[in-house]
Amino acid sequence: MTTSAVDTRHLAINTIRTLSMDAVQKANSGHPGTPMALAPVAYSLWNDHLNYDPQHPDWPGRDRFVLSCGHASMLLYSVLHLAGVKNPDGTPAVSIEDIKNFRQFGSPCAGHPEHGEAAGIETTTGPLGQGIANSVGMAISSKWMSERYQFAGCGFSVYALCSDGDIMEGVGMEAASLAGHLKLDNLCWIYDDNQITIEGRTDLAFSEDVAGKFESMGWDVVTIEDANDLAAIDSALEQFKQTEGQPTLIVLKSIIGYGAPNKQDTASAHGAPLGEEEIELAKQAYDWSAEKFDVPSGVMELFAENLGRRGAEAYQQWEAAWTDFASAQPAAAGDLQAIFERRLPDDWEAALPVFPADAKGMATRVSSGKVLNALAGPIGWLIGGSADLAGSNKSVIEDADAGHFSADQFSGRNFHFGIREHAMGSICNGMSLCGIRSYGATFAVFTDYMRPAMRLSGLMHQPVLYILTHDSIGLGEDGPTHQPVEHLAACRAIPNLLVMRPADANEVSQCYAAAIGEAKRPTAMFLTRQNVPTFDREKMGDAAGARCGGYILQDTSGNPDVILMGTGSEVEVCLEAAALLAEEQIAARVVSLPCFELFEAQPNEYRESVLPSGVAARVAVEAGIEMGWLRFLGRHGRFIGMNGFGASAPFEELYEHFGITADQVCQAAKEQVAASRN
Amino acid sequence: MTTSAVDTRHLAINTIRTLSMDAVQKANSGHPGTPMALAPVAYSLWNDHLNYDPQHPDWPGRDRFVLSCGHASMLLYSVLHLAGVKNPDGTPAVSIEDIKNFRQFGSPCAGHPEHGEAAGIETTTGPLGQGIANSVGMAISSKWMSERYQFAGCGFSVYALCSDGDIMEGVGMEAASLAGHLKLDNLCWIYDDNQITIEGRTDLAFSEDVAGKFESMGWDVVTIEDANDLAAIDSALEQFKQTEGQPTLIVLKSIIGYGAPNKQDTASAHGAPLGEEEIELAKQAYDWSAEKFDVPSGVMELFAENLGRRGAEAYQQWEAAWTDFASAQPAAAGDLQAIFERRLPDDWEAALPVFPADAKGMATRVSSGKVLNALAGPIGWLIGGSADLAGSNKSVIEDADAGHFSADQFSGRNFHFGIREHAMGSICNGMSLCGIRSYGATFAVFTDYMRPAMRLSGLMHQPVLYILTHDSIGLGEDGPTHQPVEHLAACRAIPNLLVMRPADANEVSQCYAAAIGEAKRPTAMFLTRQNVPTFDREKMGDAAGARCGGYILQDTSGNPDVILMGTGSEVEVCLEAAALLAEEQIAARVVSLPCFELFEAQPNEYRESVLPSGVAARVAVEAGIEMGWLRFLGRHGRFIGMNGFGASAPFEELYEHFGITADQVCQAAKEQVAASRN
Repeated sequence: MTTSAVDTRHLAINTIRTLSMDAVQKANSGHPGTPMALAPVAYSLWNDHLNYDPQHPDWPGRDRFVLSCGHASMLLYSVLHLAGVKNPDGTPAVSIEDIKNFRQFGSPCAGHPEHGEAAGIETTTGPLGQGIANSVGMAISSKWMSERYQFAGCGFSVYALCSDGDIMEGVGMEAASLAGHLKLDNLCWIYDDNQITIEGRTDLAFSEDVAGKFESMGWDVVTIEDANDLAAIDSALEQFKQTEGQPTLIVLKSIIGYGAPNKQDTASAHGAPLGEEEIELAKQAYDWSAEKFDVPSGVMELFAENLGRRGAEAYQQWEAAWTDFASAQPAAAGDLQAIFERRLPDDWEAALPVFPADAKGMATRVSSGKVLNALAGPIGWLIGGSADLAGSNKSVIEDADAGHFSADQFSGRNFHFGIREHAMGSICNGMSLCGIRSYGATFAVFTDYMRPAMRLSGLMHQPVLYILTHDSIGLGEDGPTHQPVEHLAACRAIPNLLVMRPADANEVSQCYAAAIGEAKRPTAMFLTRQNVPTFDREKMGDAAGARCGGYILQDTSGNPDVILMGTGSEVEVCLEAAALLAEEQIAARVVSLPCFELFEAQPNEYRESVLPSGVAARVAVEAGIEMGWLRFLGRHGRFIGMNGFGASAPFEELYEHFGITADQVCQAAKEQVAASRN
Repeated sequence: MTTSAVDTRHLAINTIRTLSMDAVQKANSGHPGTPMALAPVAYSLWNDHLNYDPQHPDWPGRDRFVLSCGHASMLLYSVLHLAGVKNPDGTPAVSIEDIKNFRQFGSPCAGHPEHGEAAGIETTTGPLGQGIANSVGMAISSKWMSERYQFAGCGFSVYALCSDGDIMEGVGMEAASLAGHLKLDNLCWIYDDNQITIEGRTDLAFSEDVAGKFESMGWDVVTIEDANDLAAIDSALEQFKQTEGQPTLIVLKSIIGYGAPNKQDTASAHGAPLGEEEIELAKQAYDWSAEKFDVPSGVMELFAENLGRRGAEAYQQWEAAWTDFASAQPAAAGDLQAIFERRLPDDWEAALPVFPADAKGMATRVSSGKVLNALAGPIGWLIGGSADLAGSNKSVIEDADAGHFSADQFSGRNFHFGIREHAMGSICNGMSLCGIRSYGATFAVFTDYMRPAMRLSGLMHQPVLYILTHDSIGLGEDGPTHQPVEHLAACRAIPNLLVMRPADANEVSQCYAAAIGEAKRPTAMFLTRQNVPTFDREKMGDAAGARCGGYILQDTSGNPDVILMGTGSEVEVCLEAAALLAEEQIAARVVSLPCFELFEAQPNEYRESVLPSGVAARVAVEAGIEMGWLRFLGRHGRFIGMNGFGASAPFEELYEHFGITADQVCQAAKEQVAASRN
């Protein structure tokens, strides 16, 4: 390598640093220290290793780069700029103007990387531990697609940069444990071992042997003593590529704020602008003479000559291989194409089962299992699993060809996530980001364990399906620790998440249709442990009404005196109450409301037809808290449900004890009718 | 030891097993396999090692026993019964009738152990990972109390039985990492290494070297090859007692469902009754001849002779030592006595600061820091810390004597929890269970990371204080991943949790008074990053109104035309809007509602005086979602807030962009007034 090439490398690395410092300073907020420390490894990875075509950032065969320490966002934006990554419309993913507008309204350069804001942001990061857990889902997707469809072009690698926070967070360790177990040798985490956290030296709270910990989880570990040692970085990345049967952790010893003479190696370099003076001194240390936000000539050319040329060639080779594959294996290629384009097969809805009326019925977790299996036929890339509750969650794809995903069988469609709900959610996000229709199952109460991942499904517009069984006190004896009470409300609170609670098997089918049909919203599907009847649809409203979020399940001949509404297992209670009311000549309409979000998105006319404003007498029934129901009840309606934790007993007794019974509903309805007549 | 003594030991162990099998069978639900496997270690621990007096289960010096694998609850109930543990009123903590009513309404023997249901249930377990994380908080409390107050009698040990699930869950690993870092040598986890999870063999999802992992985190690890080897158990527990400077993990290789010939060592022994036939066969294997639920003679006597006698002696010695200590160190003993009795010092409220009016004001996180420090004076056992955001959370106790809790200084009052929110919450629960007033701080958005712990604070009635700063889009540039939107609603959904969002420094002071004054409810205190004015209380309602949850902050002379209500930083917006409305001769009352739960607990008269039903024109303002507000708005009121995720930009621009401004409130109020006049 010539001296001038070496110089240009350092120029490129220092450009990442100076852009990051300048942008944070101009925004007057942000995190300069980590981009300054990690510029060499980011440079080396992108310029010399990543299989990535800046002209085709959506290329399905590309390596994935995840910045799990999302606060170091300027590192990513700087690299995307210097690498010349293009948006699908040909504009730069990140222009120098965008960088100048770091953390300002409308700039793709948000405080933390936001997926969808610019090409090259493979996932949204910032909440620590999420990015590395996503990366496990991406590595799984790579293994799964290439083995399932026998197309090596899907066998990409996944690189994640992570910080002490990622390694301390439980979700990160859950994901690491599973990645080691699954022997994901296409996964490389680069751990920024800078010995600094916000409160000071890491050894205030963290003194474990990280390398030993990862080795105990089956990882190969390489240590780089100096984050500026490009040869060592290169060699570590080569070692990763050679390693089989293990994921790789590169422990990179770095100095936060490298080059800033008064702030480097201290917490003060972490989360605030360095100040003009300190920036000046750092630039002197880099022997830097360019203006603010200046990219010296040669830097972008260097990326173009290496990453750009290498990526373009790889892309072309891949296209050729893809063409061959598509002609040799049209069915497999068709499936892969749908995954790449985030499409469903044309005919998938035909598979939706219809269930005959049945007074005994079945638990909605059971019908969920049936519908899941029915849809797993046409949608071969509907894959997922449970956090060690598959039998209870009824979440197994039973098809003989489905198999279980393991280090010995990457083509399996059923996942054993282990008792790791949080990582399960984050891994499902990573899989979804690769186009796979992923699902994760657990008890509904344990949504609390994976809420940060569910929120990110919503924020990233990923249509992950959360299968949540044992959805109320109806689970009975396991008691209050296992009984969801506030979880429906708490999930309904998450923006962009669809919360569904179907009342019978046919509503389950229709809710699945809505959930799977969604391209941009995740779904939380709440399902019973206990049996519920399958309603006789000849005598009742079409279950397809569930797709509108709410519909008239059973009506009266004239105007109703009262509207009874509910979700899930409590719709049956409403029907029983309606029968009791009929005996007293009170006409009750029964409305099933399986999905508030879908119902509220209906035209006002439709909503009014279901819940006419003229009928003020209303009772809502749900074995959860009232929060969120008043919008349907109006100011005077009555809610029958829970107002505290549950208890341990057979479920019939609990319903009786907490007063969620047809008698109580009937009584409330009569009071409502009387009041509305006054 | 005589043959008959050996026989009685096995009789005792088998009694634990048979009671567990019988109770699960009678309840027709539950988890028999783990009690059967762990009966020997539970027997050995309780009978031969635990420093525990069954007659005084609230004795502050007792060792703590935590059943982290809470599904194995029958193990605990059986032992509490056999050990003759008494409730404070002298009745048995667990009678044989209670066991016969396992999982039935009213029995203290709930599906999972519920703290408060019977003496000896030190914490509520079931959600995996929580118990072991609680145990870290208990071990911390022991270290802290004995070093802070220099009374060795507080130096108890903490034992936790845990399962694969506890070890896989992220919260468990966060807690383990911190326990190793803190060198908690009074902490012993016994890991039930049974190679079985619900889905099958653990190696479906879990293949790490657990011993190596714990060693990398600084733990001493002992392995017992056979869970029935009492000598090995005894020796491992002795090793724990001898080990200094490290917590101990005992890896106990066990066979789930030990003795049941057709089900042992399979997942089918985990979570369902064995069936009468299999129970019969297991009893044959134990050479068991007693009737169902029978406790053979000699068994309770054995516990009485060992645990009982040892415990009674230890208790008496402790009492003597305590008497000496109390006379030598009355101040320290007074503090400890308050901790033991879960009391506050008489004069603590006198320390509450009052803040002068100040238009510039300060962020409520800043006033929170001041109030916390003021209360930390009289309440010496108000201790806690942050998940690596202490500077941002303003959660440090600054007093020179406060210090930082570390392996070198167990007397420190400030904790570095590391980037481990979930463990922080669970550890705070463990500390609170020992009588300490614990607090944990992080960004409000990261309540999602510790929600299972917050829920358990509520369920266990522990007055843990959660200090949650950066409580809205008001945090600005960090963007949507860091901006709470749904978190106020989601926290308000948790039963028994007080959610407070004070509007200015004096409300912060009053909210702290309410939160700290609570004996049985946790508090989530939401606080701004940005400045808010300190209101001039000469011209406005007394901040003490905050203790009622809501009050009139600024009123009109006659009847109000409209009520503007809000919380936190948006109360200022309400006041600005009221001023604009006054210019247009519209009389607006401004109501601050810092705590819904406290407000709703007020007598109807008070609530009506604040929000008179006669005033239908209402506008509520909160930089979060609407959920939960309708109860105050009525059917026709208007909500001004968020209906989706935030964005990355300076906060003033975000408020403008999302329409949370005085102008918007003013406009909505005018529409409301016009509508109410029609």
